[in-house]
Amino acid sequence: MTDYGVRPIGWVRSPIKSRDQAPHQGRPAGIEAELVMEESVAPALDGIQAGDKLFVLCWFHMAEREVLRVHPRGNPAIPKRGVFATRSPDRPNPIGMCLVDVLSVEDRTLKVRGLDALDGTPVVDLKPYRSSLDT
Amino acid sequence: MTDYGVRPIGWVRSPIKSRDQAPHQGRPAGIEAELVMEESVAPALDGIQAGDKLFVLCWFHMAEREVLRVHPRGNPAIPKRGVFATRSPDRPNPIGMCLVDVLSVEDRTLKVRGLDALDGTPVVDLKPYRSSLDT
Repeated sequence: MTDYGVRPIGWVRSPIKSRDQAPHQGRPAGIEAELVMEESVAPALDGIQAGDKLFVLCWFHMAEREVLRVHPRGNPAIPKRGVFATRSPDRPNPIGMCLVDVLSVEDRTLKVRGLDALDGTPVVDLKPYRSSLDT
Repeated sequence: MTDYGVRPIGWVRSPIKSRDQAPHQGRPAGIEAELVMEESVAPALDGIQAGDKLFVLCWFHMAEREVLRVHPRGNPAIPKRGVFATRSPDRPNPIGMCLVDVLSVEDRTLKVRGLDALDGTPVVDLKPYRSSLDT
């Protein structure tokens, strides 16, 4: 089976230090965090500014990749469902996707609101939100 | 530098056979395609049905990973911008993200509308659209 190599392009700095502390989804919780991007990708940030909405793609390094069915929102009262029908971090390729508001950009550090990733989570991609594509 | 291994969980079957034929974005073009998912992840599809909106995450295996700045929409009249401020397939981790409408689910084949990935593109994740998270 072919594998593709994803490399971290940045890192999350967040007040959320463990899965126990994490909200089920970041956007409603409005948590403020920072994305500290690697020097090597700095030119790729050109054009991002405060006020933008971005999808942050992370690698959920603490997730379990063998899990295929889960109780939605971790609630045992809700029948199990396939992980592709949920936003569970546990999934075969644990790529997290979280829409955030950019509060500021200083050099290679983006301050953002609405991220549910743990402190130390690798960032693997950033994509601008486009209402024509994403709704 | 640590790398994370992403493995294909399915494959795109599409009338789009080359980058020349690809629309700049799939959703406005309304292209119909199929996702043929791997047997090993079939239980993870449980709960997906016709009428759902899904984000399809693909691995753009034809993309260039060294490109950090591009002309948006490939238009040389628009000044170059960092790839993280665009939806270009060329980026350090060439993960494509495309919102599609599910037309049908039969066994491990999902018929979808709005996918801009080439025929043969590996699928790496599926996530349900949630208006509370994604707008």
